[in-house]
Amino acid sequence: LGDEAAPLRWAEGALLVLDQRALPAEERWIECRTPDRVADCIRSMAVRGAPAIGLAAAYGMALAERGGDDLAAAAELLRATRPTAVNLGWAIDRALEAAGDGTLLELARRLHREQEEADRRLAELGAERFRPGDRALTHCNTGALATGGYGTAGGVLRTSWERGRLAQVWVDETRPLLQGARLTAWELHRAGIPVRVVADSAAGGLMARGLVDRVVVGADRIAANGDVANKVGTYPLAVLAARHDVPFYVAAPVSTIDPRTPNGAAIPIEERDAAEVTETAEAFNPAFDVTPAELITAVFTEAGVLEPPYGESIARVASG
Amino acid sequence: LGDEAAPLRWAEGALLVLDQRALPAEERWIECRTPDRVADCIRSMAVRGAPAIGLAAAYGMALAERGGDDLAAAAELLRATRPTAVNLGWAIDRALEAAGDGTLLELARRLHREQEEADRRLAELGAERFRPGDRALTHCNTGALATGGYGTAGGVLRTSWERGRLAQVWVDETRPLLQGARLTAWELHRAGIPVRVVADSAAGGLMARGLVDRVVVGADRIAANGDVANKVGTYPLAVLAARHDVPFYVAAPVSTIDPRTPNGAAIPIEERDAAEVTETAEAFNPAFDVTPAELITAVFTEAGVLEPPYGESIARVASG
Repeated sequence: LGDEAAPLRWAEGALLVLDQRALPAEERWIECRTPDRVADCIRSMAVRGAPAIGLAAAYGMALAERGGDDLAAAAELLRATRPTAVNLGWAIDRALEAAGDGTLLELARRLHREQEEADRRLAELGAERFRPGDRALTHCNTGALATGGYGTAGGVLRTSWERGRLAQVWVDETRPLLQGARLTAWELHRAGIPVRVVADSAAGGLMARGLVDRVVVGADRIAANGDVANKVGTYPLAVLAARHDVPFYVAAPVSTIDPRTPNGAAIPIEERDAAEVTETAEAFNPAFDVTPAELITAVFTEAGVLEPPYGESIARVASG
Repeated sequence: LGDEAAPLRWAEGALLVLDQRALPAEERWIECRTPDRVADCIRSMAVRGAPAIGLAAAYGMALAERGGDDLAAAAELLRATRPTAVNLGWAIDRALEAAGDGTLLELARRLHREQEEADRRLAELGAERFRPGDRALTHCNTGALATGGYGTAGGVLRTSWERGRLAQVWVDETRPLLQGARLTAWELHRAGIPVRVVADSAAGGLMARGLVDRVVVGADRIAANGDVANKVGTYPLAVLAARHDVPFYVAAPVSTIDPRTPNGAAIPIEERDAAEVTETAEAFNPAFDVTPAELITAVFTEAGVLEPPYGESIARVASG
């Protein structure tokens, strides 16, 4: 793997998916020549992160087109893989709109480039809110692996570091799949940023001791009122940050905003296999939770920094 | 293992310590014939739980007496194993007071019996606060394995179940050592209680969805003002419970109260090996956090249910 670990590559008529379940121990690529194979990769979380699964679905639609498959069927297959992130449906809808002229691979590549541009832009905007010496806390993985570009919250952290506005990052390990301990710690370490991994349940104690200056996370869906669905454990961080007057930021591309979802209660929360949590007992394994808009200090997007009242700022961005 | 998994047994001049690191997969006993060996078991968390490590230390002092060791040195060795739980020092102080008349094994056995009695009594008092249909949430392990008796918060749950006042228990898996997923789920399942294990970070989302009626946890030290040190992750639960108007209970024997510690800021918080959290990155691994008294609805002890203002209710109990 080079300096920039990319989750998706197109080569010789196939989508290559970096199997993130095996990282950082092992670099394993899955060759996808059908939308079915891409759907498997999304469902199993070989590729994960709201923007990255959107791009994977776009490439999946391109594979369907090249294979002469029924595009509507491929769209439904890909759409059904995971319910919470809205980028998935957003990318599939773009592909369906463009269908018919044999250019779905071009579309996927364009969305991929645009993701990188959006990431860079929102990272710049987010980094402006950081100050030298800041100790930031983040949850799950929101770097290049999660977006196919530069990263959302992870990109904000990298740009803040490059601008001398970051001293250290606390990384929640992020149970059950440990995306923080495995992926984020690895990405930030490669970028030269001092990292300390903590158990998810330790973040509250860190804030109580005054060891956290800012929290920044990604998003899987932002409702019209500003409520945010993100990896389970995000909501408790927001409650704790509010209690300790720590700014709580969300970093996400505009494609994560879903103006058709009125609020967090309307966001479907995926439940995953209990075996991800425990092999030896019954478990309940929601993959996401909802953070109410009232707990969010600002949302960094490539179209600008959104601030309360979110109903208005989101409507402005969503209308173009 | 029988129906009652006991963490400590005395047999043929030795203390047998059930190695809780191997549970529930394997039943392995460690034979201790010296205080040094007992200290190893406490330090490595082969035996854990504030009341249980207090009892282990009392048996360790008895072994020192039988071996003709220097009792003051044995006391210092055992006291230095873990800093946060006050029961450890409490039991060692009882042994030092009684030293000189060759009866430290009798003392350890008496403390062991008294722990069981205290557990039963506080479980009865705590269960009175539960109602039929209650869905309780707990953290870490506070059952028989943690006390050598009937359990603190775990005992409250068992008695509530027997009285028809409990429908289900959500069990935090309790990273990094998974005492909830491994020990509590196993103990409650054996008692016939419906259990669902959740990632620690999922508890907040459960409360937001109205799926938690009560939270009950144990304690490693209760300061004079009612601040409670307990397994890391307890404080976030208390903050979330307060936000959602869910009663937050602490269950602990009076020996857990330390009137000489004025408040939570004065409680030493143990930092354990980073390797418990992650093998592949730098980590910070505090074993405990502090929950301020203002977030605690009631404390169940064998001497009665303590309620705010805790400065007064604790002073009453501490004075006898």
